[in-house]
Amino acid sequence: MTRNDGRTIDALRPISIKRGFTRSAPGSIYIQAGRTTILCTASIDDAQPPWMKDEVSGWVTAEYNMLPGSTSPRKRRERGKTDSRSTEIQRLIGRSLRAAVNMQALGPRTITVDCDVLEADGGTRTLGITGGWLAMADAVASIAGDLPDAGKVFRSSIAAVSVGVHEERVLLDLDYSEDSTAEVDLNVVMTGEGDFVEIQGTAEGRTFGRELLDQQLDVAAAGIAQLTAIQRETLGDAWPLAN
Amino acid sequence: MTRNDGRTIDALRPISIKRGFTRSAPGSIYIQAGRTTILCTASIDDAQPPWMKDEVSGWVTAEYNMLPGSTSPRKRRERGKTDSRSTEIQRLIGRSLRAAVNMQALGPRTITVDCDVLEADGGTRTLGITGGWLAMADAVASIAGDLPDAGKVFRSSIAAVSVGVHEERVLLDLDYSEDSTAEVDLNVVMTGEGDFVEIQGTAEGRTFGRELLDQQLDVAAAGIAQLTAIQRETLGDAWPLAN
Amino acid sequence: MTRNDGRTIDALRPISIKRGFTRSAPGSIYIQAGRTTILCTASIDDAQPPWMKDEVSGWVTAEYNMLPGSTSPRKRRERGKTDSRSTEIQRLIGRSLRAAVNMQALGPRTITVDCDVLEADGGTRTLGITGGWLAMADAVASIAGDLPDAGKVFRSSIAAVSVGVHEERVLLDLDYSEDSTAEVDLNVVMTGEGDFVEIQGTAEGRTFGRELLDQQLDVAAAGIAQLTAIQRETLGDAWPLAN
Amino acid sequence: MTRNDGRTIDALRPISIKRGFTRSAPGSIYIQAGRTTILCTASIDDAQPPWMKDEVSGWVTAEYNMLPGSTSPRKRRERGKTDSRSTEIQRLIGRSLRAAVNMQALGPRTITVDCDVLEADGGTRTLGITGGWLAMADAVASIAGDLPDAGKVFRSSIAAVSVGVHEERVLLDLDYSEDSTAEVDLNVVMTGEGDFVEIQGTAEGRTFGRELLDQQLDVAAAGIAQLTAIQRETLGDAWPLAN
Amino acid sequence: MTRNDGRTIDALRPISIKRGFTRSAPGSIYIQAGRTTILCTASIDDAQPPWMKDEVSGWVTAEYNMLPGSTSPRKRRERGKTDSRSTEIQRLIGRSLRAAVNMQALGPRTITVDCDVLEADGGTRTLGITGGWLAMADAVASIAGDLPDAGKVFRSSIAAVSVGVHEERVLLDLDYSEDSTAEVDLNVVMTGEGDFVEIQGTAEGRTFGRELLDQQLDVAAAGIAQLTAIQRETLGDAWPLAN
Amino acid sequence: MTRNDGRTIDALRPISIKRGFTRSAPGSIYIQAGRTTILCTASIDDAQPPWMKDEVSGWVTAEYNMLPGSTSPRKRRERGKTDSRSTEIQRLIGRSLRAAVNMQALGPRTITVDCDVLEADGGTRTLGITGGWLAMADAVASIAGDLPDAGKVFRSSIAAVSVGVHEERVLLDLDYSEDSTAEVDLNVVMTGEGDFVEIQGTAEGRTFGRELLDQQLDVAAAGIAQLTAIQRETLGDAWPLAN
Repeated sequence: MTRNDGRTIDALRPISIKRGFTRSAPGSIYIQAGRTTILCTASIDDAQPPWMKDEVSGWVTAEYNMLPGSTSPRKRRERGKTDSRSTEIQRLIGRSLRAAVNMQALGPRTITVDCDVLEADGGTRTLGITGGWLAMADAVASIAGDLPDAGKVFRSSIAAVSVGVHEERVLLDLDYSEDSTAEVDLNVVMTGEGDFVEIQGTAEGRTFGRELLDQQLDVAAAGIAQLTAIQRETLGDAWPLAN
Repeated sequence: MTRNDGRTIDALRPISIKRGFTRSAPGSIYIQAGRTTILCTASIDDAQPPWMKDEVSGWVTAEYNMLPGSTSPRKRRERGKTDSRSTEIQRLIGRSLRAAVNMQALGPRTITVDCDVLEADGGTRTLGITGGWLAMADAVASIAGDLPDAGKVFRSSIAAVSVGVHEERVLLDLDYSEDSTAEVDLNVVMTGEGDFVEIQGTAEGRTFGRELLDQQLDVAAAGIAQLTAIQRETLGDAWPLAN
Repeated sequence: MTRNDGRTIDALRPISIKRGFTRSAPGSIYIQAGRTTILCTASIDDAQPPWMKDEVSGWVTAEYNMLPGSTSPRKRRERGKTDSRSTEIQRLIGRSLRAAVNMQALGPRTITVDCDVLEADGGTRTLGITGGWLAMADAVASIAGDLPDAGKVFRSSIAAVSVGVHEERVLLDLDYSEDSTAEVDLNVVMTGEGDFVEIQGTAEGRTFGRELLDQQLDVAAAGIAQLTAIQRETLGDAWPLAN
Repeated sequence: MTRNDGRTIDALRPISIKRGFTRSAPGSIYIQAGRTTILCTASIDDAQPPWMKDEVSGWVTAEYNMLPGSTSPRKRRERGKTDSRSTEIQRLIGRSLRAAVNMQALGPRTITVDCDVLEADGGTRTLGITGGWLAMADAVASIAGDLPDAGKVFRSSIAAVSVGVHEERVLLDLDYSEDSTAEVDLNVVMTGEGDFVEIQGTAEGRTFGRELLDQQLDVAAAGIAQLTAIQRETLGDAWPLAN
Repeated sequence: MTRNDGRTIDALRPISIKRGFTRSAPGSIYIQAGRTTILCTASIDDAQPPWMKDEVSGWVTAEYNMLPGSTSPRKRRERGKTDSRSTEIQRLIGRSLRAAVNMQALGPRTITVDCDVLEADGGTRTLGITGGWLAMADAVASIAGDLPDAGKVFRSSIAAVSVGVHEERVLLDLDYSEDSTAEVDLNVVMTGEGDFVEIQGTAEGRTFGRELLDQQLDVAAAGIAQLTAIQRETLGDAWPLAN
Repeated sequence: MTRNDGRTIDALRPISIKRGFTRSAPGSIYIQAGRTTILCTASIDDAQPPWMKDEVSGWVTAEYNMLPGSTSPRKRRERGKTDSRSTEIQRLIGRSLRAAVNMQALGPRTITVDCDVLEADGGTRTLGITGGWLAMADAVASIAGDLPDAGKVFRSSIAAVSVGVHEERVLLDLDYSEDSTAEVDLNVVMTGEGDFVEIQGTAEGRTFGRELLDQQLDVAAAGIAQLTAIQRETLGDAWPLAN
């Protein structure tokens, strides 16, 4: 079986990443998988969020937004309020990125990762996590001089990918047309060491049994291993974790 | 190991259910697990949602809300806007309940399931699904005379439960104090036949490997089997599925 | 003349009250009159409202909300903003309950009384006041140990009832079908000693003269005397006022 | 006892009224009582409100707003949302004005009466009703040619006044300083024939007995009789009711 | 060429101004040009805006609002949010009035100028500036005793006018019917000394060349000189600038 | 005098433009001047705006938004509501782009131009106009086959630039640091033929006379001539105007 774009069922889309895409934010990653394109920026505020009571820890939060021109037809700008899909996605991104960080080592600071989707062709939430972690790494590096032990801020790297089931086959990294027809939709977030950070699986057209879940998890793990390698290559010497 | 309330690690909390708790909505289920108490009402509107273009199918939507007095300290009423946690939860409940329904057999109607939490002590989202399905069953029964084939509206029963990991042990159906200290939090939604509808697992304090995931899924499946039996007993002759 | 439910024109609907309905709020009253059912919870915050400048007094505020499933057809949830009817009602409940309390004796605390209507069949605002006062009594009792003179917090008990005019007859405690056709609608809030706290009368279909107003006030006063006796019986030894 | 401004306890403040104050709205009344000044405009839209199902009746609605400069210190402009006091007041004004109108004779039109307070010194809600009725009379007169039976649109004239209790004395038409210290605050809306349209009484500092209520109603009725005479004189030949 | 109201092309509409129109705000100017009528009130708060960091300067801000009855058909009240036209206008008024004030001499205070349009017939933004400056002058005079050097608060007087192009002729001070058909719309704000504060020119139906711009600026300057003379006469001895 | 970045006072910043930056919108222009970077996308909806009554014309509207990461410190996302500066800017962009289009030739369609600022270093509103016109040109070209006379849609090209006054010198195309200290700020929008579309000049620190205005307009006109040449080169054969 060949897919629309000629990929095999267990292949990622081609990925392109530019570090320092803008200079206004200390972490600024332009990340593209196929046609899905996201600008992930990470900003650091020297203050805890107001609700935090412990005085030594930091926090990581995320916002997700699709630019109106990122889809066709144009998506109405979320100005009245954040729509419920975006709310759900940005909570997922925030939780996932927080799992990567040692909040004591970060100290009383807030990292905000903004994932602004420039073009949407499926898999925006997982690509936002993969790119957002890179932006966060660059942002933390920019303040390394202010941190007592910068080497301990990251507990792990984090990457994410989607898998789906279509006509009984498990597909890796679905584009929009595949996502629309998939019967099961599973988003997996893992550390570079291969542990789970978050699993979200939804039966879209049919419920699914344990065996099919296991197959999907295998395919996802292999995809995330490739993404981790790309992240490592992108950062090079700036990789923030022990080798 | 005994838990706060004396349960074994794989036991559900005691469950109490009252059908027809109020008469204003055709489905009205008061459901209690330990101290967590939810009023699930299901209302039916003889119209499709405005965005639906196919003219013969129905739709199921859910709303989730915690009453201000359901927690201590009091939770500020969500009047300005739905908070992001509630948004995420009601999307989960809605997707899960939709998986149970054959939309063609329902016809051009909208079922709205409201899960209003009267007292919150952990597990509100999963208990809302378990109770919401019962409210939906009673609401559909109330219009059976208007449906060409009422027996085909439900594709399956749906129930849900949480599992968590605490000090390397897997616990079923966490209460609030257990949930606060759990290292992994997994919500599982399954059909009465034991297929998955939704899986949402989050590393809270530590990431987790495949083996631990497998253990949690086993414990969840056993819990859901018990909940399905309770649902079946609650509805008795009103059980809307074959057998 | 007999009414729909067999009551005489000057009879209250049957009333059922459960104290401590939930344990999350210190005052939690489930109160039912006929089919109208309200959960009144009272929570206490150890802080004054921000606008209060005198440093020794407390405050009482109320919120009123109908659950979506409390009416048929379903009432749209007030999430965008509080609707104007609810705003008017919760201002009435708040003013009425404040009249019962000696704010200096309460000290710098805020009591919030939430009236969440589980089922609406007329008279929700007056039943909310009657039940809200009970919830407030239980909540204050729960902090009696922290108060220098707990016995002085309450200046009086408060109860409320509606009366209406239908075909020249004055009816006590209207249900929804009666309320819809009443020509005059009068809500009366009184202390246990029989003084007025609030009167709100509205000509719905016809204006009304002084004599008819007097008749309505007589019927309301007799109804409130009965409600006060029920409140006293409900609280028993917990009655917070000198005998 | 003399009052701040030298009035006797049962005297109205001096009233000044200008008809046709602006020409943009068909009814435009500038009304002043002491320093309280309101611009009441009435506009007519040739359409029913969207929720109205009967096809032949009209509707009357009111909006109330205080200009920021109408008080000292300046009142924050109600742009985020209508504050709850304004909501309550505009519901009162709307209900009161609707009582004056025969909706069938008005036909499928909506009259909107805007009460914009230019200067606030107590009694704005009652002065808004008194002035709003005049604006409505002029607006209806402007479309008399389009109405099959213009003479039947008004069922009565409507005027309103406040009374209060201060040191055991009943005062008519309170200004702001009197209102702030009044122990009871009663707003009375009556027809020109002396029937009640709306009564709203609130115990501010003390509850009140039946006798005191009766005294207040007597004083209010006398005040409203004077206001009706002023309304009649203001409109002259344009008085819309049979003599 | 004669205009609708008989004016020559370079004539202002007749202007009428009342100082101290209300007493609730220290500056209260009722200003009318033809039928356009605005109540400009200026209030002073003894605090800087929260974002101001320098501790010695003051600030001037403006709000613009059209009353619903100021136009026909009635303008929907801006309660949900400020509409974008009003936002643009009040930013223009605020910037213009700030240019008149020496913020150090004002000291840590905030002047808010509210321009509430009672009747709108074109030119509301420019008339609001002309009247707003007068209200600000009276408000500052009311606190002169608290200012170390009240004579230095004003750097200049400010007035504004619109000009437009219609059939190749430049018209001064357009009313609504002229504004609707003008091909170019230019609003000019100048000091009493004839310097520019703000210029906003928009091609409505046709773009325009440099020569036509120059003609419009000449006509505007002449109009503003007349407005300045009217302002000076209105304030008389209260004119806050050196002669 | 040399500027921070070495430019002469009458030089534009280096400009970089990419057409077809994303494929989801028919017009997608990435435009950069110095560090200011904007993604301008133009989408076409085959429907008129709802308020349009004439059935044959089209409409052009614009939205302006700064991404949170486009500034340092991070700009809070405009989700509650559009802030007033953005409102003012997007009205300017919309008016300017509409001046370029023959609405009859466009037919009953709506073009929405989204200017999303990826990095902000001064001059975003003028660069948004220059880039927005290019995006609009590509979007119209994409539907040329559906238009009866595509060659008549554009009446002219449109470009914009800012000029300012700093220490008595007129500077072209201010960056953020220059803009912050400029004494006068003038934004000029012109057609490719050199006519004015919009002029907005504001005295920031000092008012300005006619001579200084004339100098600024000269400098702006020269800058816009260069921008027009760049636009023409960018589109090449796709230039939508004669010649």
